[in-house]
Amino acid sequence: MHIARRTARELAGAIAEGALKAETLIEACLARIDEREGDIQAWTHVARDQARALARACDREAAHGPLHGIPIAIKDVIDTQGMPTRYGSPIYEDHLPRRDAACVALARAAGAIILGKTMTHEFAAHPSPVPTRNPRNLEHTPGGSSTGSAAAVADFMVPLAFGTQTGGSLIRPAAFCGVVGYKPTFNLIDRDGMRVICSSLDTIGVLARTVPDAALLAGVLCGEALGAFDHTPGPPRIGFCRTPFWDRAEEATRGLLEEAARRLAGAGAKVSDLAFPAEFDGLLKAHETLGEAEGARALAHERRIARERLSAALNAKLDRGERVSAAAYEQAVRSAEIARLQADRLFADHDVLITPSAPGEAPKGVGLAGDPIFNSVWTLLHVPTVTVPAFTGPSGLPIGVQVVGPRFGDRRTLTFAEWIHRALA
Amino acid sequence: MHIARRTARELAGAIAEGALKAETLIEACLARIDEREGDIQAWTHVARDQARALARACDREAAHGPLHGIPIAIKDVIDTQGMPTRYGSPIYEDHLPRRDAACVALARAAGAIILGKTMTHEFAAHPSPVPTRNPRNLEHTPGGSSTGSAAAVADFMVPLAFGTQTGGSLIRPAAFCGVVGYKPTFNLIDRDGMRVICSSLDTIGVLARTVPDAALLAGVLCGEALGAFDHTPGPPRIGFCRTPFWDRAEEATRGLLEEAARRLAGAGAKVSDLAFPAEFDGLLKAHETLGEAEGARALAHERRIARERLSAALNAKLDRGERVSAAAYEQAVRSAEIARLQADRLFADHDVLITPSAPGEAPKGVGLAGDPIFNSVWTLLHVPTVTVPAFTGPSGLPIGVQVVGPRFGDRRTLTFAEWIHRALA
Repeated sequence: MHIARRTARELAGAIAEGALKAETLIEACLARIDEREGDIQAWTHVARDQARALARACDREAAHGPLHGIPIAIKDVIDTQGMPTRYGSPIYEDHLPRRDAACVALARAAGAIILGKTMTHEFAAHPSPVPTRNPRNLEHTPGGSSTGSAAAVADFMVPLAFGTQTGGSLIRPAAFCGVVGYKPTFNLIDRDGMRVICSSLDTIGVLARTVPDAALLAGVLCGEALGAFDHTPGPPRIGFCRTPFWDRAEEATRGLLEEAARRLAGAGAKVSDLAFPAEFDGLLKAHETLGEAEGARALAHERRIARERLSAALNAKLDRGERVSAAAYEQAVRSAEIARLQADRLFADHDVLITPSAPGEAPKGVGLAGDPIFNSVWTLLHVPTVTVPAFTGPSGLPIGVQVVGPRFGDRRTLTFAEWIHRALA
Repeated sequence: MHIARRTARELAGAIAEGALKAETLIEACLARIDEREGDIQAWTHVARDQARALARACDREAAHGPLHGIPIAIKDVIDTQGMPTRYGSPIYEDHLPRRDAACVALARAAGAIILGKTMTHEFAAHPSPVPTRNPRNLEHTPGGSSTGSAAAVADFMVPLAFGTQTGGSLIRPAAFCGVVGYKPTFNLIDRDGMRVICSSLDTIGVLARTVPDAALLAGVLCGEALGAFDHTPGPPRIGFCRTPFWDRAEEATRGLLEEAARRLAGAGAKVSDLAFPAEFDGLLKAHETLGEAEGARALAHERRIARERLSAALNAKLDRGERVSAAAYEQAVRSAEIARLQADRLFADHDVLITPSAPGEAPKGVGLAGDPIFNSVWTLLHVPTVTVPAFTGPSGLPIGVQVVGPRFGDRRTLTFAEWIHRALA
């Protein structure tokens, strides 16, 4: 197999054994970018020379971490020392952060090489247009706001990438592009150096082409919480959660999720229907309130000095945020907190839930983020979710299955997501 | 009264009416700094020329916000555009942030003038020595880590300042210096642009010389949540909470708090003893776990590139943080969440609680932060607390009373803190 198509685990193993040079891997990724970036436009910056120099340095020393010589891409709302970081906004066209975000520093400390920065919507807070195209069909969007990270991983430009999610900004583009997306339990990956717009919800996560690869990168960020990722679990007890939004999913998606449930049961999983708790009514409204109210505060500097360089739609959203009453904000915070405690009960009889990753395939058109309806509640609940590519839809584009686990149950959730990915392969 | 000793509300009123020039106020503050800074050493940077220019600009236009022309000081863990921001660390000796923190932007949008940056301990995370002295007695510490903000406000160099708190870093120095400190409900003031080290706990707050002044500044940061601060409440129902740490308070402090309870009852408040819930056992351990584990992640960049420029004691704390197990971290997060819901019950029969602000007067010596024993649990509970200066202790230094309210009850908590401040005056 072409080097750039191999998994991060295979590549790291080969580099550690001396069977592969880090420089060869970087050149393979850069060649793939040269070949495809004109069509895909996944990157805002490719750090060619720096990556080559770091790869040569890797090749001069023994492997000193589990990602020794592995290139990764960074969503451009996360700071990187000496690389442009634009937060998807023209206000930061010339911004060179002084320091690495904590997650970037931990990846570097594990030996990773930052290959560059990837396209995102405006502050990952509003789906302003981006030019990136879905590698599986250039007439379709890769989704957003972790747009470039999903496209670059899907197109074999890089094996691993960081994304972030407030609603569905990581799981959805991963599903649209046919890769694995992992949104950890809230705050398990520290947000130092990320441009946080919604402090109650924003979560850093990982995109990869396999679940073990996602766990490999997450493991160096969360430490102990993921170190013991287990490749060989027994079949899980799965709750099939159609959610109250089931009729928002396309017919093909609904049919394929039903098929997934049958096939997983056939593979030995104990699959049962799980009703969405009635108490969760109102969580979408709480999600919207938190996003608007916290966004208005977090972008206060840009609103003051460069309001006209924010998009009109983002300004309108933040205007609404400024008008959120104290009582409405408190209500949103409290209802989310109570729902998080109730969500623990969903996992009394289930190891994980399955639910759609998105309403359907990636929509036709460029610049569209997609609908977060199957993601926002899980983000609000702070639970870990993993999307695994499972099917091909009627337009020939990927359909993902979203695997949801209990808060802090990240290791087991990833383990069972891997079981599900294999069972549906 | 000398201009620099007047309240922010008086000053803002005088400027709005044209009875006082903003430039005159800035010059009065700078004169006070010139007179006293050699002894106090509250500031890491005074933006003299910029503040003068902004004051002249204020004087050329009509008041456009409630803080028009009012100087404020910013704890040096909060970014300010074009002003050195060092986070209390030699690693950031030459750091000039590109943008203002959100709270700074909101203060500027309300007309405030940033007078400069104030001394803090290393990343406000470890009590490394700072040179600042307590204005009430130069042989004593002002406490930390909002060290310079407390000293500058107490010494009439500036009427308002920002501080931050993870354990007792705002309430304690305010009490030691004899000023008002207000730590809001968690996340009510957005932390964008603050160097967050403990994301579950770090809270931005305000130091002032009166409660209405603290509410004035907080009002422009929290918007609706504090807009309707009420000056004339009836007497509150007060729970006197000695806490399980009562014997850690000095004898004089214990006696003065008992006296406060008697005097507040005499002034018409309904005062009753409030037992610290037994379920709160273990919260101090949870606080320590969150501080260490999250600190190790948040300082990953500095640990990677400049470990030797972090203090040995901070490195030791972060080393412990790296060893916190996933189970211990989860346990800390969950016990804090459950305690927050239980804490609501403390306010079923009480409007506010009173408890010591600190174990005693400011300790003798320079560079000491002080003991957070009477603060950490409230920070973990995310409840608003206000310290008001109430007594003079045996060494002639201030003793504060800490007023604690329910989460999101900030307006009422401030209102009753003002009632308590007046009743004890």
